[in-house]
Amino acid sequence: MKDVQNSVDNRRIQIRKAGIKNLRCPVIVLDKQKQSQQTIAAVDLFVDLPHHFKGTHMSRFVEILNQCRGKISVRAIDTILKAMLDRFHSETSHLAIRFPYFIEKAAPVSGEKSLMDYTCGFLASMERRRTRDRMDLIVEVVAPVTTLCPCSRAISREGAHNQRSWTTIQVRTRELVWLEDLIEMAEAAASAPLYALLKREDEKRVTEQAYANPRFAEDIVRAIAGRLRKDPRILWYKVETENLESIHNHNAFAQASGWTTGNRRRERRSAAAAQNKRGKDEVP
Amino acid sequence: MKDVQNSVDNRRIQIRKAGIKNLRCPVIVLDKQKQSQQTIAAVDLFVDLPHHFKGTHMSRFVEILNQCRGKISVRAIDTILKAMLDRFHSETSHLAIRFPYFIEKAAPVSGEKSLMDYTCGFLASMERRRTRDRMDLIVEVVAPVTTLCPCSRAISREGAHNQRSWTTIQVRTRELVWLEDLIEMAEAAASAPLYALLKREDEKRVTEQAYANPRFAEDIVRAIAGRLRKDPRILWYKVETENLESIHNHNAFAQASGWTTGNRRRERRSAAAAQNKRGKDEVP
Amino acid sequence: MKDVQNSVDNRRIQIRKAGIKNLRCPVIVLDKQKQSQQTIAAVDLFVDLPHHFKGTHMSRFVEILNQCRGKISVRAIDTILKAMLDRFHSETSHLAIRFPYFIEKAAPVSGEKSLMDYTCGFLASMERRRTRDRMDLIVEVVAPVTTLCPCSRAISREGAHNQRSWTTIQVRTRELVWLEDLIEMAEAAASAPLYALLKREDEKRVTEQAYANPRFAEDIVRAIAGRLRKDPRILWYKVETENLESIHNHNAFAQASGWTTGNRRRERRSAAAAQNKRGKDEVP
Amino acid sequence: MKDVQNSVDNRRIQIRKAGIKNLRCPVIVLDKQKQSQQTIAAVDLFVDLPHHFKGTHMSRFVEILNQCRGKISVRAIDTILKAMLDRFHSETSHLAIRFPYFIEKAAPVSGEKSLMDYTCGFLASMERRRTRDRMDLIVEVVAPVTTLCPCSRAISREGAHNQRSWTTIQVRTRELVWLEDLIEMAEAAASAPLYALLKREDEKRVTEQAYANPRFAEDIVRAIAGRLRKDPRILWYKVETENLESIHNHNAFAQASGWTTGNRRRERRSAAAAQNKRGKDEVP
Repeated sequence: MKDVQNSVDNRRIQIRKAGIKNLRCPVIVLDKQKQSQQTIAAVDLFVDLPHHFKGTHMSRFVEILNQCRGKISVRAIDTILKAMLDRFHSETSHLAIRFPYFIEKAAPVSGEKSLMDYTCGFLASMERRRTRDRMDLIVEVVAPVTTLCPCSRAISREGAHNQRSWTTIQVRTRELVWLEDLIEMAEAAASAPLYALLKREDEKRVTEQAYANPRFAEDIVRAIAGRLRKDPRILWYKVETENLESIHNHNAFAQASGWTTGNRRRERRSAAAAQNKRGKDEVP
Repeated sequence: MKDVQNSVDNRRIQIRKAGIKNLRCPVIVLDKQKQSQQTIAAVDLFVDLPHHFKGTHMSRFVEILNQCRGKISVRAIDTILKAMLDRFHSETSHLAIRFPYFIEKAAPVSGEKSLMDYTCGFLASMERRRTRDRMDLIVEVVAPVTTLCPCSRAISREGAHNQRSWTTIQVRTRELVWLEDLIEMAEAAASAPLYALLKREDEKRVTEQAYANPRFAEDIVRAIAGRLRKDPRILWYKVETENLESIHNHNAFAQASGWTTGNRRRERRSAAAAQNKRGKDEVP
Repeated sequence: MKDVQNSVDNRRIQIRKAGIKNLRCPVIVLDKQKQSQQTIAAVDLFVDLPHHFKGTHMSRFVEILNQCRGKISVRAIDTILKAMLDRFHSETSHLAIRFPYFIEKAAPVSGEKSLMDYTCGFLASMERRRTRDRMDLIVEVVAPVTTLCPCSRAISREGAHNQRSWTTIQVRTRELVWLEDLIEMAEAAASAPLYALLKREDEKRVTEQAYANPRFAEDIVRAIAGRLRKDPRILWYKVETENLESIHNHNAFAQASGWTTGNRRRERRSAAAAQNKRGKDEVP
Repeated sequence: MKDVQNSVDNRRIQIRKAGIKNLRCPVIVLDKQKQSQQTIAAVDLFVDLPHHFKGTHMSRFVEILNQCRGKISVRAIDTILKAMLDRFHSETSHLAIRFPYFIEKAAPVSGEKSLMDYTCGFLASMERRRTRDRMDLIVEVVAPVTTLCPCSRAISREGAHNQRSWTTIQVRTRELVWLEDLIEMAEAAASAPLYALLKREDEKRVTEQAYANPRFAEDIVRAIAGRLRKDPRILWYKVETENLESIHNHNAFAQASGWTTGNRRRERRSAAAAQNKRGKDEVP
């Protein structure tokens, strides 16, 4: 049977990423409280394709993913990325995996328990180097929170507009950081956290908490960035907040990012080197 | 060239709806202020397919739609539905068209003008009858509004949770009802309307207006239903509100529907007759 | 603390549905092969609200849902719907739950195994009656399949356009019907099923299978409706297919629905009765 | 009235982007055939926020956008970005605008005309410099096309799986490049283009054209990259194709990007400089 993908391509154009997008599959993720939790992920897997190959064999990505038997950990991601480099004879491999993640929370007054849902993920890539492969791993959480507008509160006789907001934290780390830790940072920086279940006494508490803690999208982003900068586990961060404004039909947005102290010079050098090889080609 | 669609099908199963979904096209819609406005619609067109035909010729739907040259009015909808019945030799034809719709609003204090966007649509069907064809037309608006929770306000020392909500109104009418009129009803029933542009003095006003007018999703639905019931132009209504709760990651929802006074008995009869012909088969 | 929701409302407008939408939570669903599988659901829960109550207590829905501890079966749905009627003193309760569902499939030639994903759900409601409560349960599966166009194949010298399609089956049944059984019907009626993993020999087989089995959206809908009509377990069905046309940027669509033989007369009577009470108010 | 946004912030954390997302508004875009066309856009506007300001005044973004009166051209984008820098005393400003765009196409045999829809956009940013401001503009088109799998065709006795695919082209250019030119490149590189309206003779032609031109996602990306590299108008490109695989429920994906010949050295230098200032902080 003809192997069209393996045939020679003469256009001399390298494909930076070739692979599969949006494969749905069950996964088991490490959980700070309960050791692990089962959930459903959407997975992207790509490799670069040297210019002399015509195509990739898409089925190999699914085979490699199946070998980790649904257990997603930092070690499993390393194994998947390495297997992709080996199997496709590639120089870089990429993996993105995102999933709903649940944490049991007690309502603040009644103590009633319920599961709150977040969207978490791992964005990783690996470069094949002469000496050893180098993995780049970003951990991501999207935590829905309440924001109450400081301006609206300051100028209004009573009340203040507030809304559901999405706070996204991405980090590169020196050591394991739990999804729970990042979610806690997002919620602590907001006007108030969200809950799946609030009795009336809880609703009173959460309403008053939000009113006592007005936050712009910019405030949340700065508060989280401030904590991450001082956290010795963190190398790099990107923080965003998007407010589903209750007084507008568009959203308010803020973003900050950077390397933490002590990592900037080192990283700048390696970044500049990478840049020289790659050319600045990402959308700013 | 073989005409597969026209070939005979012997399974004796009638297709209730066959056609095209989600065709994007520019349309011109009647506008209360400016006579007309141009926008972009998503269109669905279906006919029933008698059991002896194998398939429909999908291109005919697009040809029929092109004949109205993008002008969408009650008269154009009637023409499209009739053309579908004629062209496909069908007994029923269906059309759904939805589009963003813009209204220029002045901010409540500063008077600064901006365009606010709504999602509007027409859902229509036609039945071929011996004497004359009968069109059924539903006008739909989805207006984003602010809702401020009456419970949260009543029990909290200060503040009250509020959020962006979507209020949907569908009506069958006796005569022309402007999209603007339905949008006005949705905004009047809410805690406050939304604006694209609010200066600080406007934000103060809107915040205080919302705090002075707490509304459950249920309240909005009832207030609108109450107005529609007494409106002599309206035959039937369905009203929904969905709150993007600022304290939860799920939404609150309320819905009411019914025939207006004087139309219930008449409609019940025709409905029961239709029912006898059709069998109760919709999801409740 | 004031109970605003319980306060009296004098507008005399009944809310048909009040509740929560799009609550994300882990669930365990019965599985034909492996007894059960864990997945993530989106849940809607509503009750009707008698005209003299101002609002519903949204937290109660989550409490009721939590009591089933994530195990979703026909019995659990019955329990949830009953609990909603009791807790809210309502006459009708509604539940909709949808989730990704996975089936291990072997590729047709190589036999390589992989998990294929479907979207399944249960749409249920309950009416409180003097003698006993009456549950109405619809089981739903959305199976992605391949459709290859019979017209394109018949008129073209070589090849035929084909595409990914979504086939949706909803059924009301007399007894348990497995999700797997409905998915099998959808795949058997299509030009070919989909797989997560196909080696080249499998891709050859699937390509040839699709070419040998051209199907319009209408054909799939009729084939499934034909099987369901003769299936003694089925009382009612609604079948839809939507093709992501590879030659157009809009979709082709077909739908059929009806009561199965022997159930039409009986159901017509109860439907007409329901109709008399309710008034024809759904969008046709 | 207190101006909270203008108050001092002492955390010394700079916000890279603060502004509004997903504002819907009507726009008029230059059109190669008809001079201009009216459509509906989704707009994002951001500025960087110096570390000593607490927040941005969101209403100013809408005021600035309103000043261009809906006319979107390269000159208007320049004006908006400059106005943002001036109004917010910022060093960088960002604009992203995306809209459906329509081109009248004649069917290949019958010549029947219909409007085909694409999603196009402009992604721009401006940096304030001592000597003069520097705008960076990326033009983007997303063209839906047909792809027919070369592997499936080569190994199968008859037929070949094919599907709708999205091809995205982004370019930085030296001079004006029409949206129509980029769309033409995407369609020429695919197995076949899509049409809103095809009669049977056209469907035959398009089916045979696709079968005669099998293309992997990788092939399309390379063919377009090859043309862009030689196009003297182009400085930089990024090309992606995503196939809604008809035999899988996940998508196939390929991407290539780079600076065109003669621009690489120059750009590398400025990129490395930018990098030194900014730190490598984007997700790779």
